[in-house]
Amino acid sequence: MSLSSASNASCEELISSDESSNFSSLSKEDQYFFEGAEKLLEIWFDKTECDAQSLRLIPFDELVCMLDIAQCHILHSASNEFVDSYVLSESSMFVFDEHIILKTCGSTRLLYVLDYLFHLARKYANMNVVIGVFYSHKNFMRPDRQPELHQKFPLEMNYLDRYFENGSSYCLGSLKQDCWFLYTMSLPQLETYRPEHTLEILMTEMSSDVLSVFSRKVCKDGKECTKKSGIDRIVPYGTIMHEELFDPCGYSMNGLLPNTDQYVTIHVTPESGFSYASFETNQNLCSLYQQTLKVIEVFKPSKFLLTVFSNDFSAKGKETQQSLWECPISGYRRANVQLLKLEFETLVYAQYVRS
Amino acid sequence: MSLSSASNASCEELISSDESSNFSSLSKEDQYFFEGAEKLLEIWFDKTECDAQSLRLIPFDELVCMLDIAQCHILHSASNEFVDSYVLSESSMFVFDEHIILKTCGSTRLLYVLDYLFHLARKYANMNVVIGVFYSHKNFMRPDRQPELHQKFPLEMNYLDRYFENGSSYCLGSLKQDCWFLYTMSLPQLETYRPEHTLEILMTEMSSDVLSVFSRKVCKDGKECTKKSGIDRIVPYGTIMHEELFDPCGYSMNGLLPNTDQYVTIHVTPESGFSYASFETNQNLCSLYQQTLKVIEVFKPSKFLLTVFSNDFSAKGKETQQSLWECPISGYRRANVQLLKLEFETLVYAQYVRS
Repeated sequence: MSLSSASNASCEELISSDESSNFSSLSKEDQYFFEGAEKLLEIWFDKTECDAQSLRLIPFDELVCMLDIAQCHILHSASNEFVDSYVLSESSMFVFDEHIILKTCGSTRLLYVLDYLFHLARKYANMNVVIGVFYSHKNFMRPDRQPELHQKFPLEMNYLDRYFENGSSYCLGSLKQDCWFLYTMSLPQLETYRPEHTLEILMTEMSSDVLSVFSRKVCKDGKECTKKSGIDRIVPYGTIMHEELFDPCGYSMNGLLPNTDQYVTIHVTPESGFSYASFETNQNLCSLYQQTLKVIEVFKPSKFLLTVFSNDFSAKGKETQQSLWECPISGYRRANVQLLKLEFETLVYAQYVRS
Repeated sequence: MSLSSASNASCEELISSDESSNFSSLSKEDQYFFEGAEKLLEIWFDKTECDAQSLRLIPFDELVCMLDIAQCHILHSASNEFVDSYVLSESSMFVFDEHIILKTCGSTRLLYVLDYLFHLARKYANMNVVIGVFYSHKNFMRPDRQPELHQKFPLEMNYLDRYFENGSSYCLGSLKQDCWFLYTMSLPQLETYRPEHTLEILMTEMSSDVLSVFSRKVCKDGKECTKKSGIDRIVPYGTIMHEELFDPCGYSMNGLLPNTDQYVTIHVTPESGFSYASFETNQNLCSLYQQTLKVIEVFKPSKFLLTVFSNDFSAKGKETQQSLWECPISGYRRANVQLLKLEFETLVYAQYVRS
């Protein structure tokens, strides 16, 4: 009987933090920390409602007020015919006609925006009915540094239940190691008969060679950083980017593909003690499996997890899910892979560790 | 925005119980309760170890002592060339040459047997190395009625970590509704190149028509109950059964398929306030999908969840998983389906609700 010397953490700890902490050995002097892992909220409204218009009619000032509640603000924006893209002080926001993507890192209070968002949707877009909700995040490195609501997933889950009926909550991955929490609710109107898919790659423990580029010491601005890091070569051809290099370090980029509602967004927390990078896209131009390989090649993380949502109408999404299920990623061991069938979508979750 | 009036349970409650309770409205007078949902522990030892013999050499008296620790006892047994089958005061035990299945319901203290089990394996079978562990249970209806260790899955998880290295823990299904917890650990030796699969069906909320049969009021003994309930028609042809009808109600049956290591086991808690029935088999004689339909036809549960483990060598297991993924079960809505790829096995989890 091999008696494990490894995990002997007290259960009390596990239950009270709900998510793993890698920081128990941090000395008091070494307390600077930034949570790179984003809270990701995507909300779909019913566009078939009588008199429904577009969420893009919400005035800029009102979006600023809404983001105030989450404790972040807009740095710059870009637009095309289909979507308004905002780079934030903490990650990104995309506003489409009928849905909104809010992705905020650090210790932002994302879920508190719900009331105000619904008020804005009602007031400016005549949209009163939510037909789809996806709220997710990786387990936080330091849940104790989050606002109370976000410290434990059950708290977030109950908070969302105040707003939505028949929501479901999942924990994908092993409860003890890295994992990913999802709250989701879908009404039949969400089944749109158009292809929808989203790829997200959440990376940790990058090497200092990779990370050093994302700082003011090495690059003067976001544009230079995009080039030096190789990010310009991993986004689909023609992507129009607006990016930010933070001071002293940290990077955010939103990219829009011309004449579509397709976007790419990348965020990097380069501090070596808690390095984190994320990549997200709904692009339909090239293989999402090849896209994944390119992202991994640039960031070279020691560990990463990825999620692929796909509805039944997305050939690209389905194909990617199959590749991830069947094909190895060179240099990595797949620690974990799960498939979850939701009401109108399938989700593949996989976790990889450098071999 | 549809504001849910449904779930508003305090988070504190959710976290402290860890699992859902359907009994918050029970009056004091109505406190009799029995937890039908079993704790299921399957442990595989390394048979290639030098001098390794068989777990079936463990003397009867020693098994009795081991079960004492879990607070249950043997009622009767049956054997064939491959397996010893025991019906217990709380569910069942199967002992094979190299692995053991312990399934205990009620408020048994199952995980406490580990030390003694390992001692017996060492002493009587020269088996010192565990190569596979599967510990699982449905969320308990009343976790507060369990011994402390079993009240919260994180506690069980940490307890198992004291014994095994690199175990993984999962919660399948929606965290807020019915769900199923799994702890598992596998070493490469477990990859046996022989087909292995297990089907488990966990049913709740049966109608009184179905349940009334499993009582002394209606049947005089287990044999009569097996016939009257229709159980004799859902087990594979030739199954040799030994069963127990409890007083005043409750039913357990173990069945062995002749000349194989294949078993069937059924347990029924028929009290209407907390009715529960389980079916488990590794049989290879007929389609497991058809097997599932037959079981559902007999028990007619309002809700059930099922799990199918299959290794890569089991055509029957794979085929069943595919059927469950693709085919509906008439009269039921599939609330949930998940696929989890483990080291050497794939698991399909699905949950159904009467439509």
